[in-house]
Amino acid sequence: MVALQQKVSERRSKGMFVVEGVREVEHCIESGFEIKEIYYSPNPTFHIAEGNIDGASMIEVSKQVYEKIAYRGSTEGIVAVVKEKNLGMEDLSLPDNPLIVVVESVEKPGNLGAILRSADAAGVDAVIVCDPLTDLYNPNLIRSSIGARFTVQCVACTSDECIAFLKARNIQILTAQLQDSSLYYDTDMKRPTAIVMGTEATGLTDKWRDAADKHIRIPMLGKLDSLNVSVSAAILMYEAVRQRTTRT
Amino acid sequence: MVALQQKVSERRSKGMFVVEGVREVEHCIESGFEIKEIYYSPNPTFHIAEGNIDGASMIEVSKQVYEKIAYRGSTEGIVAVVKEKNLGMEDLSLPDNPLIVVVESVEKPGNLGAILRSADAAGVDAVIVCDPLTDLYNPNLIRSSIGARFTVQCVACTSDECIAFLKARNIQILTAQLQDSSLYYDTDMKRPTAIVMGTEATGLTDKWRDAADKHIRIPMLGKLDSLNVSVSAAILMYEAVRQRTTRT
Repeated sequence: MVALQQKVSERRSKGMFVVEGVREVEHCIESGFEIKEIYYSPNPTFHIAEGNIDGASMIEVSKQVYEKIAYRGSTEGIVAVVKEKNLGMEDLSLPDNPLIVVVESVEKPGNLGAILRSADAAGVDAVIVCDPLTDLYNPNLIRSSIGARFTVQCVACTSDECIAFLKARNIQILTAQLQDSSLYYDTDMKRPTAIVMGTEATGLTDKWRDAADKHIRIPMLGKLDSLNVSVSAAILMYEAVRQRTTRT
Repeated sequence: MVALQQKVSERRSKGMFVVEGVREVEHCIESGFEIKEIYYSPNPTFHIAEGNIDGASMIEVSKQVYEKIAYRGSTEGIVAVVKEKNLGMEDLSLPDNPLIVVVESVEKPGNLGAILRSADAAGVDAVIVCDPLTDLYNPNLIRSSIGARFTVQCVACTSDECIAFLKARNIQILTAQLQDSSLYYDTDMKRPTAIVMGTEATGLTDKWRDAADKHIRIPMLGKLDSLNVSVSAAILMYEAVRQRTTRT
């Protein structure tokens, strides 16, 4: 049991992953994931409605064991083992005028988690991760998303599949890049839109640049030459929110 | 020398701080900080114009020693010891129509660094940190700012001092808060403006809420109830950029 966190590969081969933290586990349950086991320390400060975790084993562990199980040094005292639910593109449920965020080969799980957190806040309909370099059940991803990993539809696929999907549905492709680009706030995001972000280090591949309906950039007015990728994504998502909700 | 990083308190008592990384040190030099010592590993991949570091000791150290000096596991191979330059409110150089970001008691150095990075990109004129809970020369702050700690004017003061400063200059105070607030994009940011952010955990104090000309909020359209403070700050800064540069 102490090896719960270490044996990630073994657990993942059985289609399971680990979620830590009251808020994160709650979002996971609310989003219909199947909870297999819940480990908690004595005198937990949380309460989970029982109906939602039928079939899950509730396992109380000592404070000492809990500290070994938990990634964080926190006292929240809950770690759940959860069954994976790997969605494909065909599982996505999208409204008539979707707002989608596409992330190509993002390297840092923390950045992807941060993008998911902002996507939840901005009411983004789906986050599509193309050619992922990180596991979508990475614990750092889940943690930095504060549970948005479960509240936002999130699928992985190849860039080719994603481009075909977007083109077939007439969803405009806006790629974030500095070269040959328009200011993002001069760009219409009121119609079906996918905002596409590249990797932290090298940006987008030519495949996406060529597939784009428009290249958009965030103006850089200072001495540095880049924004954090999750910050850039949030600025672009909220420009779409602004355009879609402002009366003009 | 190996104790360079550990003995932060001793060094700080002498008015020195440490900067690591080629880009960060370059921004530090360009911004007129006085470099005292530069430690570098053999075969460095950087080049610094000599005129700017007159009087600094250049100290080559072995790979082994360098690894002990450096916080990061990186191979960039440069660590500088720099003289502090602590600005007060009276040192701030502001244009006629300033855009200022105020941060009240932010707790995490990484968040403050991220805010500074975005502030550089958005061309913010100054970042004022009120009642700081973190050292403005904290290594994690400098690192997450990617050098923006040096490119953006950054001062610390009390909230009372800051409010008096802003009121005396007719700079409108916009506080980011969910209660009793207007949508941020319905708010005029074209005139002299200070955007005020609260702590990660508890938000702004009543002092700032009462001092505000307007309370503004970022709409939360998902299931979670908050954005990262540095993401929120970036969204608000770039709304000011949009309003100030869009032809309407």
